[in-house]
Amino acid sequence: MAQLPTVEDVARVASVSRQTVSNVLNSPHVVKAATRERVEAAILELGYRQNASARRLRTRKSATLGIRLDPMTDGISGSILDRFLHALTEQADDRGMRVMLFTASGPQGEIDQISRLRDGADVDAFVLTSTFHGDPRTEWLIANDVPFVTFGRPWGIDDMNDPQHLWVDVDGAAGTRAATEHLIDTGARRILYVGWPSPSGTGDDRRRGWESAMRERLGCSDADLDGLHVTADEGVVQGSAAVSPLLAALPAPDAIVCVSDSLALGAMTAAASAGLSGLPIVGFDNTPVAAAVGLSSVEQCLGDVAAGALELLMGSTGNDIVGADLSPGEAHRLITPELVIRSPRHLPLFDRAAATNAPGNHEERERP
Amino acid sequence: MAQLPTVEDVARVASVSRQTVSNVLNSPHVVKAATRERVEAAILELGYRQNASARRLRTRKSATLGIRLDPMTDGISGSILDRFLHALTEQADDRGMRVMLFTASGPQGEIDQISRLRDGADVDAFVLTSTFHGDPRTEWLIANDVPFVTFGRPWGIDDMNDPQHLWVDVDGAAGTRAATEHLIDTGARRILYVGWPSPSGTGDDRRRGWESAMRERLGCSDADLDGLHVTADEGVVQGSAAVSPLLAALPAPDAIVCVSDSLALGAMTAAASAGLSGLPIVGFDNTPVAAAVGLSSVEQCLGDVAAGALELLMGSTGNDIVGADLSPGEAHRLITPELVIRSPRHLPLFDRAAATNAPGNHEERERP
Repeated sequence: MAQLPTVEDVARVASVSRQTVSNVLNSPHVVKAATRERVEAAILELGYRQNASARRLRTRKSATLGIRLDPMTDGISGSILDRFLHALTEQADDRGMRVMLFTASGPQGEIDQISRLRDGADVDAFVLTSTFHGDPRTEWLIANDVPFVTFGRPWGIDDMNDPQHLWVDVDGAAGTRAATEHLIDTGARRILYVGWPSPSGTGDDRRRGWESAMRERLGCSDADLDGLHVTADEGVVQGSAAVSPLLAALPAPDAIVCVSDSLALGAMTAAASAGLSGLPIVGFDNTPVAAAVGLSSVEQCLGDVAAGALELLMGSTGNDIVGADLSPGEAHRLITPELVIRSPRHLPLFDRAAATNAPGNHEERERP
Repeated sequence: MAQLPTVEDVARVASVSRQTVSNVLNSPHVVKAATRERVEAAILELGYRQNASARRLRTRKSATLGIRLDPMTDGISGSILDRFLHALTEQADDRGMRVMLFTASGPQGEIDQISRLRDGADVDAFVLTSTFHGDPRTEWLIANDVPFVTFGRPWGIDDMNDPQHLWVDVDGAAGTRAATEHLIDTGARRILYVGWPSPSGTGDDRRRGWESAMRERLGCSDADLDGLHVTADEGVVQGSAAVSPLLAALPAPDAIVCVSDSLALGAMTAAASAGLSGLPIVGFDNTPVAAAVGLSSVEQCLGDVAAGALELLMGSTGNDIVGADLSPGEAHRLITPELVIRSPRHLPLFDRAAATNAPGNHEERERP
C-alpha cells in the first residue's frame, strides 16, 4: 500500500518549512500569495489530505456559520432552502452560533466569498446547499481545510463516506418509495412517475424509489417502467403538458407520483381537465401550496436536516466546531422523509361539496 | 420654546465627563457597566436625543447588517419576509455588505440580541421588520444610538417623519384601493372586504384603501360599508368560514377584496362551494400560492422595499452607514405596490375547460 503524503512531503516539494505548510492550511492570510500558491500546487500535486482530527478548529473565533443565499425563486418549491435556513438559524442560536448570509454567482463565486470570509475570520464554518455532480466547492474546502457541511450528498463520487466531507441529505428514494407503496396498498397498479430529466442527482434518486417499489411489489419490467415514466422541467405548466397525453391514452394511470409539488400541481390540473379530479397524486416537498390545494406530498423534515448538519459540525452536545473527528460511517446523516397523505375528498378546490372541509384540515402522516 | 437637552446636560446629571457620554453613545463596550447605566439613566431622565448628523457611523467596522429571522410559519403569506431577506441580501452584497441573522423571542429578546451584537462590533446597523403599536425596539435603538431602519412604519405615532426613525413600508391602502377601483371599473358594485380584526396597523391601513375607493367612487355610506366588511383571523379555513354566510345571503357580492392571500384562498373555496367559482377575488402579497391557483393579488415589490431600506441607511450610492443625515421628509420611503390581475377564465383548478392555460400564464400587472 502506498504511503499517504504528509505535511513533510508537501514542505519538501514546495521548498518551504513545515510551519509554512501548516500556515497555508490554517491561517493562509499570514502567508504571502506567491508562497501560498506554491504550497497549494504541491498539495494538489501530491494529493495531500490533512488528517481528519487535525482539521478541528481549535478556537471558535466568530461564533458564526456562513451560508449562501440564492436569489429568490418565486416557484412553488423555492421555499425549501428558506425553510432549511429558518431551522438552521434557530438551532444554531441554541448553540450560541449566528448565521451569516452572503450571495455568490456560481460555484467559483461562492469559493471566492468563502475564501474572503475565512481570511477575515468572520465565519468559523460553512454550510453548503445544492451539491451537484463534479461540485468544485467541496474539493476546495477540503484542500483549504475550511470546516464545512453540505446539505446534499456528494453526487457522483464513489466514496460517500469520506470523513472529510460531512454531509446531510434527505433520502429521496425512501420518500417516493413510501408514496408508491402507499398507492399500491390502496389498490393502484398503473402508477405514473413524473420526474426531472436525467442526469440529476436528486431527481434520479427520487425516481429510484418509485422504480424499486414498482419492481419489488408489482413485478414491473423495464418495459413496464418505461411506459409509466415521463420527465418534465420544473414547473406547473410543464407538469400539466407532460401528463396530459398520458391521461388521454388508454389504459389511464391509477395514480401519479411526482418529483416535486410544482409538477404534481401541473398533473393535478391535467387530471381535473381530463375529468379525473379524484386521481391520487403525490408531490414532493410538502410546500404551502400542497397544503393549500390538498395535495399529498413528501415532507423533507428540514428541522432534522438542520439538526444533523449542526451535529456533524459541532458534535451532539458541543458548541465548538469540531470538524470531522468522526469515523467514516458517522460523517453523514441520511434523513428519512415523511409522507403526508391528504385525502382527495378534502380538496375543496376540486370538489365543491367538500368546501367546508378546509385544505390541510385532514392529514395523515407516515414515515416509512 | 424649551431648550433641547445636550450632551453637557447628560454629563452633568450623570456626574461624568462629556467624553464618557460620547463613549456610552458610540462605544458603550469601553465604558464600565455601572457608569454606563448612570449615563443611560440620565439620557432617559432628560429625554436626550443625539443630533441626527452626529449619529452617523464614522467607520464601517464589520460591513454587516443584522436582521432577526423568525421561526418558519408554514402559512401562505409567511414567505413575504423571506422574499424581503433575499432582496436585502442581494442588494446589500452590491454595496459590499453582508447580512447576519439572529433569532430572538419577543421585542425585549431582540433588543438584548442587538445590544450584544452592537457591543461585539459584529454588526454596523440593523434592519427591523414587523413594527407594531408601542414598539419598544425603535425607542431603544434611538436612545442607544444604534443605526437602524425598519420595514414597517412607526404605527400609532403622530410624527411619522421623525428623522431618527428611518423606515420603509408598502402603501397597503394604495394596494387595496387599486384592487377595489379595478373591480369597480370592471362593473362590480357590492365589493366585500375581508380584513383582519382591529387594531392592526397593517390590516387597518389596507382596509382604508377599500373604504376610500367605495366612498369616493360609489358614494357608499358607513352603513353600506359595515354591511360589506367582515373580519377573520389569518388562515384559509377562517377566510372560508367568514365569507360563506355572506355568499348565501342576498344580494350576493359582486367581488371580494381580501387583506391576504390566505383569506382570499378561503374566500375562493367558499365561492366555489356556493357555485360562484367565477366571482372576482383579489388577495394581498402575490404569494406562490396565488400564482398557482390563479388568484389576483397585490404584489408588495420587496425589491423596492430592500432598495429603499439600504438607501436610507447608506445613501443612494454610498456604501457606508450614514444614518439619518436626512431632512424629515426624506427619512422614509412608502412603496406603491402593484396589482396583479389573473383572469378567472385562467383558473384551471376551478375551470376544467381551461386547464391547458396554466396558472400564472396570463397575468396583467398595473401600478396605481
